[in-house]
Amino acid sequence: MMPDAERGEMATNPENPTRMLSRRSLPAITDRIVSTYEECGAIHHLGHSPLPSYREIVDILADLREVLYPGYGRRQSLHLGNIAYHIGALVDGLHERLTQQIARALRHDCNDRRDEVETRPLAEEMVLRFLDAIPEIRHTLAEDVQAAYDGDPAARSPGEIVFCYPGVAAVTVYRVAHELHRLGVPLIPRMMTEYAKGKTGIDIHPAALIGRRFFVDHGTGVVIGETTRIGNGVKLYQGVTLGALSFPRDESGQIVRNVKRHPTIEDGVVIYANATILGGQTVIGRNAVIGSSAWITRSIAPYTTVTIEDPRLRYREATNGGETDGDYALRVNYQI
Amino acid sequence: MMPDAERGEMATNPENPTRMLSRRSLPAITDRIVSTYEECGAIHHLGHSPLPSYREIVDILADLREVLYPGYGRRQSLHLGNIAYHIGALVDGLHERLTQQIARALRHDCNDRRDEVETRPLAEEMVLRFLDAIPEIRHTLAEDVQAAYDGDPAARSPGEIVFCYPGVAAVTVYRVAHELHRLGVPLIPRMMTEYAKGKTGIDIHPAALIGRRFFVDHGTGVVIGETTRIGNGVKLYQGVTLGALSFPRDESGQIVRNVKRHPTIEDGVVIYANATILGGQTVIGRNAVIGSSAWITRSIAPYTTVTIEDPRLRYREATNGGETDGDYALRVNYQI
Amino acid sequence: MMPDAERGEMATNPENPTRMLSRRSLPAITDRIVSTYEECGAIHHLGHSPLPSYREIVDILADLREVLYPGYGRRQSLHLGNIAYHIGALVDGLHERLTQQIARALRHDCNDRRDEVETRPLAEEMVLRFLDAIPEIRHTLAEDVQAAYDGDPAARSPGEIVFCYPGVAAVTVYRVAHELHRLGVPLIPRMMTEYAKGKTGIDIHPAALIGRRFFVDHGTGVVIGETTRIGNGVKLYQGVTLGALSFPRDESGQIVRNVKRHPTIEDGVVIYANATILGGQTVIGRNAVIGSSAWITRSIAPYTTVTIEDPRLRYREATNGGETDGDYALRVNYQI
Repeated sequence: MMPDAERGEMATNPENPTRMLSRRSLPAITDRIVSTYEECGAIHHLGHSPLPSYREIVDILADLREVLYPGYGRRQSLHLGNIAYHIGALVDGLHERLTQQIARALRHDCNDRRDEVETRPLAEEMVLRFLDAIPEIRHTLAEDVQAAYDGDPAARSPGEIVFCYPGVAAVTVYRVAHELHRLGVPLIPRMMTEYAKGKTGIDIHPAALIGRRFFVDHGTGVVIGETTRIGNGVKLYQGVTLGALSFPRDESGQIVRNVKRHPTIEDGVVIYANATILGGQTVIGRNAVIGSSAWITRSIAPYTTVTIEDPRLRYREATNGGETDGDYALRVNYQI
Repeated sequence: MMPDAERGEMATNPENPTRMLSRRSLPAITDRIVSTYEECGAIHHLGHSPLPSYREIVDILADLREVLYPGYGRRQSLHLGNIAYHIGALVDGLHERLTQQIARALRHDCNDRRDEVETRPLAEEMVLRFLDAIPEIRHTLAEDVQAAYDGDPAARSPGEIVFCYPGVAAVTVYRVAHELHRLGVPLIPRMMTEYAKGKTGIDIHPAALIGRRFFVDHGTGVVIGETTRIGNGVKLYQGVTLGALSFPRDESGQIVRNVKRHPTIEDGVVIYANATILGGQTVIGRNAVIGSSAWITRSIAPYTTVTIEDPRLRYREATNGGETDGDYALRVNYQI
Repeated sequence: MMPDAERGEMATNPENPTRMLSRRSLPAITDRIVSTYEECGAIHHLGHSPLPSYREIVDILADLREVLYPGYGRRQSLHLGNIAYHIGALVDGLHERLTQQIARALRHDCNDRRDEVETRPLAEEMVLRFLDAIPEIRHTLAEDVQAAYDGDPAARSPGEIVFCYPGVAAVTVYRVAHELHRLGVPLIPRMMTEYAKGKTGIDIHPAALIGRRFFVDHGTGVVIGETTRIGNGVKLYQGVTLGALSFPRDESGQIVRNVKRHPTIEDGVVIYANATILGGQTVIGRNAVIGSSAWITRSIAPYTTVTIEDPRLRYREATNGGETDGDYALRVNYQI
């Protein structure tokens, strides 16, 4: 921070030459910035083919939402008599725009060793396979929405869930991104799930494997790692981490990629708020219930309910200023 | 993921018929997608009256912000001489737009059993009552902003708080949404608080009851459930959950809605980061202090400070590679 | 909530006078709202010089992103032959717009005791010094991006990191905001970091001191307080709080501002998910590792690995309905 004296001096000097100076100094500043583009190579993208556009990916997701949940979005007054025209126009546009973005991602992925003539037909094939999977994605999402309604007493209607629930928004983007990942599309699936994470606080890696009827309630702070496997009918609350215990490294100290580092969650498991489950060998057996704030690094048998012990807490009463250790649960049982 | 061989084959085949194929296949793909709209009923909204528009609700919140905090938003150079014109125009527009959105929400709420002629007068009455409550909402917000300033040593001015503090942004939307909820407006209050949650990470159900001088600092991950009751002068930090312990179910196994599932927090309580307080019977007595990371499922007496015990930690020193269990607090007391 | 009887009465009364009423009542409502602007002074900004514009600050950050990571953003097809024109235009625009915003912030900071003639030269000097620091900021960011790549096995390329990683987005905004803070710019640095927090869930106070090669993975819920000091090569995961233990108050009960309230983290420390480290005297020694969910309020020696003990958990098996306390880690070791 500049000393106040210096601030004052600059502010009151009537012949302050700043404006003149700035006309002269801006070209010099520009030159100095540009010269860093030759030094810090990894953080610019100059002289290469165009990258996928983040804004375009966000627009594509918005159009996909119109296709997946028609009538809930921008376009109103749709019915079974006019919906085919609306969807046909959206699908046609998605076909063109997704193809362009995927072709760019494929070129980036091979360091521009292939040009557009080579990557575009592969991109188009991927897009057709993806569009072909949309009916199946809709069936899966219908079950996800029903699971959210069944699982939350505060939900009033399926409409409220499609409209408002961040868990459903994040799972929708995950299901789209996972299908693209499965088809071999690089970069774009991750751009999609990171966009959803920014909107919802729910971070699902597109490579994670997640079964049907999946529900994340509230969801801020949820992290589901790359090699996580989740069965059917699983429910998670906010702050749950399905993470890695440690990263294996090779002989040269480099992190080994592509090994299972994240847990397996079997069918019907419920994991309450802020629980942390770590490790690629950790399996939470089917229908187990993991209580709030539990910290788990080993496997849990099926049909087991795990809760942390009532913690031993220290408390101080303001009236006497003293401090006593003790089991608050036994001694404090205040009800109004 | 497609095998690389297959990728390569598609990419280099000079007679790749993909583009021809796509012209033929897009109508078929569209038909297959449209046919799912007859199967997965819960996740489309076709053939019904229009729903409230999410984008319109967001715009309405932006206009309300101009009314609640004039001079901090889009319109600059306001003073007491010209403010009435600016506010009059905003109130007039809000009246028209909120009425339309609420009329739509009311029709959706009764499954289109009432048409616009029936729902519009009720919507208009609700809007007039809401606009009438704005002066009282402003008085409450002025106290919330003051509580934020008093409660955060990093705050430099009330202006910084109105501008920057996500807790104030989320509480502002909650106070608006709660008033609409209180007047019986369906769906829209939840859309508003979920929008705020996306922007701030702070998830306050519009039905929660919250007293005056309420401050949430940082706030990412905060969840305040539907049946929570909070007194006056309460302060929460990031990651605090005021949640349900379990959901009562009726004889058929359906979740029972509308019972008190979330805690009661009395006047003057402070709850530090990542504390979890669960259960509809749990009461945190007035002026109690709940320490960081505490996990509480029973009531706490007034004027009590609860902190978790220094946890027993295992530590390993890298120098000898050994591992010892022990109370780090006794043995490790390193200061630079 | 209005009783349903009342709702029905309003909705079906054919002579419902609501619309007539609203024409008469809107001016009265406007007057009542405007009158609160004379009462609740702290939450309006009327009759003062214009404040910095939040929207303009967001646009300035977008332009800075183009300068810091050219080719990754809006403008495509850049190469070393045309980049100087693009950057020159951006720098020129940034110079003008940042100067205006900083001049406004300086006037607000001194309660309008200085006018534009006084604050503008100081603002311009600050902007020139800031632009001059951009090459150094780029060198630092190149190391941050490399640290992210080295630290995350799920990362596929530096490009993916610049594009997708919320930790890199938040640290980028922090490095810009910290430089402006260091130069004495009021208000705007905090607006910038709160904007980044809304996008990423990562809350870094612009006054915190953070060394080189800093990486935050996932990051939702991270809070780094105003007086935190972080060394080189530090890595944090989601939900980590570097916070205050309590606030010192002066004799009159007012919070004392500007004392060190937040911890010091030395070089090479790794802090896993949801760990909480509190207190201005707390020092985490170099190359220490703090395990997930640890809660630390005292200093930790260098080269120490701290993990919480396997917690004692209660579990219930659904098959027999019984409940037993026990060390789940010894007794439950289920593998599929």
